[in-house]
Amino acid sequence: MSQIDLYDTTLRDGAQSEDVAFSVEDKLRIAQKLDELGFQFIEGGWPGANPKDILFFEEMKKVELKSAQLVAFGSTRRWRHKASEEINLKNLINAGTNWITIFGKSWDLHVTEALGITLDQNLELISDSIDFLKQQGKRVFYDAEHFFDGYLADADYALKTLETARNAGAECLILCDSNGGTMPWQIKEILEVVMKNIGNPIGIHAHNDSEVAVANTLMAVSLGVTQVQGTINGFGERCGNANLCSVIPNMKLKMGLDVVSDDQLKQLRSVSRYVSEIGNLPHNKRQPYVGRSAFAHKGGIHVHAVRKNPETYEHISPEKVGNQQRILISDYSGKSTLFEKAKSYNISLSDDSPQVQKILSKLKELEHEGFQFEGAEGSFELMMKRALGEDRSFFKLIGFRVIDEKRKGDAQSISEATIRISVDGKVEHTVSRGNGPVNALDHALRNALEKFYPALSKVKLLDYKVRVLTASDGTASKVRVLIESGDGQKKWGTVGVAENIIEASWQALVDSIAYKLLKG
Amino acid sequence: MSQIDLYDTTLRDGAQSEDVAFSVEDKLRIAQKLDELGFQFIEGGWPGANPKDILFFEEMKKVELKSAQLVAFGSTRRWRHKASEEINLKNLINAGTNWITIFGKSWDLHVTEALGITLDQNLELISDSIDFLKQQGKRVFYDAEHFFDGYLADADYALKTLETARNAGAECLILCDSNGGTMPWQIKEILEVVMKNIGNPIGIHAHNDSEVAVANTLMAVSLGVTQVQGTINGFGERCGNANLCSVIPNMKLKMGLDVVSDDQLKQLRSVSRYVSEIGNLPHNKRQPYVGRSAFAHKGGIHVHAVRKNPETYEHISPEKVGNQQRILISDYSGKSTLFEKAKSYNISLSDDSPQVQKILSKLKELEHEGFQFEGAEGSFELMMKRALGEDRSFFKLIGFRVIDEKRKGDAQSISEATIRISVDGKVEHTVSRGNGPVNALDHALRNALEKFYPALSKVKLLDYKVRVLTASDGTASKVRVLIESGDGQKKWGTVGVAENIIEASWQALVDSIAYKLLKG
Repeated sequence: MSQIDLYDTTLRDGAQSEDVAFSVEDKLRIAQKLDELGFQFIEGGWPGANPKDILFFEEMKKVELKSAQLVAFGSTRRWRHKASEEINLKNLINAGTNWITIFGKSWDLHVTEALGITLDQNLELISDSIDFLKQQGKRVFYDAEHFFDGYLADADYALKTLETARNAGAECLILCDSNGGTMPWQIKEILEVVMKNIGNPIGIHAHNDSEVAVANTLMAVSLGVTQVQGTINGFGERCGNANLCSVIPNMKLKMGLDVVSDDQLKQLRSVSRYVSEIGNLPHNKRQPYVGRSAFAHKGGIHVHAVRKNPETYEHISPEKVGNQQRILISDYSGKSTLFEKAKSYNISLSDDSPQVQKILSKLKELEHEGFQFEGAEGSFELMMKRALGEDRSFFKLIGFRVIDEKRKGDAQSISEATIRISVDGKVEHTVSRGNGPVNALDHALRNALEKFYPALSKVKLLDYKVRVLTASDGTASKVRVLIESGDGQKKWGTVGVAENIIEASWQALVDSIAYKLLKG
Repeated sequence: MSQIDLYDTTLRDGAQSEDVAFSVEDKLRIAQKLDELGFQFIEGGWPGANPKDILFFEEMKKVELKSAQLVAFGSTRRWRHKASEEINLKNLINAGTNWITIFGKSWDLHVTEALGITLDQNLELISDSIDFLKQQGKRVFYDAEHFFDGYLADADYALKTLETARNAGAECLILCDSNGGTMPWQIKEILEVVMKNIGNPIGIHAHNDSEVAVANTLMAVSLGVTQVQGTINGFGERCGNANLCSVIPNMKLKMGLDVVSDDQLKQLRSVSRYVSEIGNLPHNKRQPYVGRSAFAHKGGIHVHAVRKNPETYEHISPEKVGNQQRILISDYSGKSTLFEKAKSYNISLSDDSPQVQKILSKLKELEHEGFQFEGAEGSFELMMKRALGEDRSFFKLIGFRVIDEKRKGDAQSISEATIRISVDGKVEHTVSRGNGPVNALDHALRNALEKFYPALSKVKLLDYKVRVLTASDGTASKVRVLIESGDGQKKWGTVGVAENIIEASWQALVDSIAYKLLKG
């Protein structure tokens, strides 16, 4: 088995994702996570393209990585600048890394159209730039941008650029499918020629514009490349890069390649979520291996079968990548799901009890109103208990009022909530400000209740999501609010649905508190 | 070239997606869209598994499809029931379609563990069930569930199930990778054996648990299968099914297979968005071919190059699938992007004007505060005009107040907004109710302004999104609000950022109105 290096470019190519903008602090934190995952190389950014990246490399000089090598990324010199006077190359050297990746053009179209120089001049750029970096004591990788498109346009020239880079001292030549338009069989055909004419060390860098980036990467791995580039969650420009969160478990669990240890593989889901969190993007539920839905079962037959043997509908054991099995709640799933859920809540139901029908019809009624309990397991458990008469009322609302105000000259709006509740006949009346009406209402309610239920002081609102449900059948449109709460040990989700967003939020808030008090 | 049938299962397998719940009305609307796209077969649901699906097939009896055949889906009979007495099969027949797809077991594990019967008994189920349906005058497809897993466990038995189905009269045998764990090279190896021993008509049904469903499907196509199953947007249980929105353009544009017409291909993006909209899921930006980011360029070099020649960073012309090129705004993109944007707004900027620096530094400042202009082009254009002193103030705020109230016994919360504004010294004071504070505020503001600006009567709030930005550097967390507005002809997005959600919403509302009034 050949040694394969994992090369992560989340911090550079991944940062090109629409909606992703990492701060320097974000990048420092992610770099350390990637190091723990056992990657050999971490591409940190393009010093010069962005002042943030210069600062990042400066800060990284103080950070000690366990196993990974930090890499700075940049382009070959420009035509009118000598390598030694080229600011881009200077920035790369100043980044202070041992390793530098530079990219150059393989596609005649790009040389003549984008750079506006001759094919021979492009070879000079590649050769000079690598040569200069080597003279400065750097170790160099060469990214052959648009290699596959270039090969299809002019195979001889594309191969010549690779030879040029290797002769100049590049230690690995990475074939990039920069536009992401290449099919797996084309990767195979072209890579076989490269392996025969140029030979290893060769790397692969795929984009997902045709939704085959993972397959293209695995195809290259099966043909013996020694470096695999990609990003966490497949972040990247346009449709993204090859997703390492799928490439790695496929390599390890399907191809038997020990690219990470068993323990590192178990960190995969947590790193994937961490990078989404830091990138401030919702984690993609349906993401293979690491998504929240990846081992979630909804259809009645599937639920029935996985209860008997998980292998029936799970291609790997979810624990291997740090994920877990979930049983979902929907009108498609029927009784099997309900039993499975009830069991996990310590509610005992017998197969033909009238209670099962009662819960199922309540569930259908609520789903019809727009409720959805996926992501709101707290509310689901409360709904079950209510249907069985096992719930408790913890307080009575007398009334609340929320006021948001802004006057001429005010820089900010102000929100204030007042609430009157009673617990066992004792009335409590509180007021609170907040960042907006729901936040103010949450504070006022919790202030009022903490006197009676001190455990609530630990509860915090962690996330608040609003979804506008499309109007149908002539009704007004409704709003669904999902709240995630936590007490430092556990997290739980609750849901509310109403035409008025304040009402929907109120329902979810009340459930959040009831859940905490019920579970203790 | 062999004729390949497209078989869509969005309405059945797609409905198994977490968070997707189609109503009967939704399914009727989607079926008609799929028909327009030229699919040969539309799997409508599983009558019997869900009362909704029985109703759907009933309603579909009144609908005339142009080219597609509607298919009902179900399982083989259960072991203890005769085919003629089996309720599942009766439901299938009552669905009233010409075509029926039934699935059966290919994997010994499923036969013995999930069904709890012998391998021979399973063959009987397959044979009997198909036979019965044929006797009732139906045409039958056979889905070989878990075929690839089954083949790897016991190749002879898996092949025997196929033979049994064919001998019973199934017109196409569809090989399902039900757990989505099979690699492309395994698909190839196994399919070659099937083609040799069983032969066409054979179909493929892939799941995306290893992120290779599209590649697996294309692999099967390249080996000559005659039916391709998948779903719009890859909706489906767990990580989803093979995504037809990628499979189709890959087949048509990369493999030269005329599975849909040029005009139908141009509908792809619109159908993809339609199904997400109906499914009430946000459309995935990064989705290949049809996503909003699929042809979006952010990096400065990329923007510079695609301005010269789109082919440099676009693997296909986006118009072919009904998509379009977009230039994004970010601190990575630099001047090229700014010029491109300015041009599209009819703002003329010269390369070294001090205005360019002014706009760039304003942009960085706002991005630092949490603003993001992707999806809020309206606010971006206003920001540019403000930086150049080309904006106008359309009204002055004197003050607003929003009150949300709920009292004991009220079923719903009530929101009411009052606002005082002035236009050219004339004061207007209005009040309005709304579904929540922002809705009430929007109504009150528009009521006040319509007197001065009648054009506003056509403007509607189309979408409202809230994002909580993670707190960092010890600051309080902020909220970013994105509003989409439309006037029946155009749509535009605006953004607001503040600690208070009402303040952030206010900013976005004010921009929405200013944008409409500025553009006329």
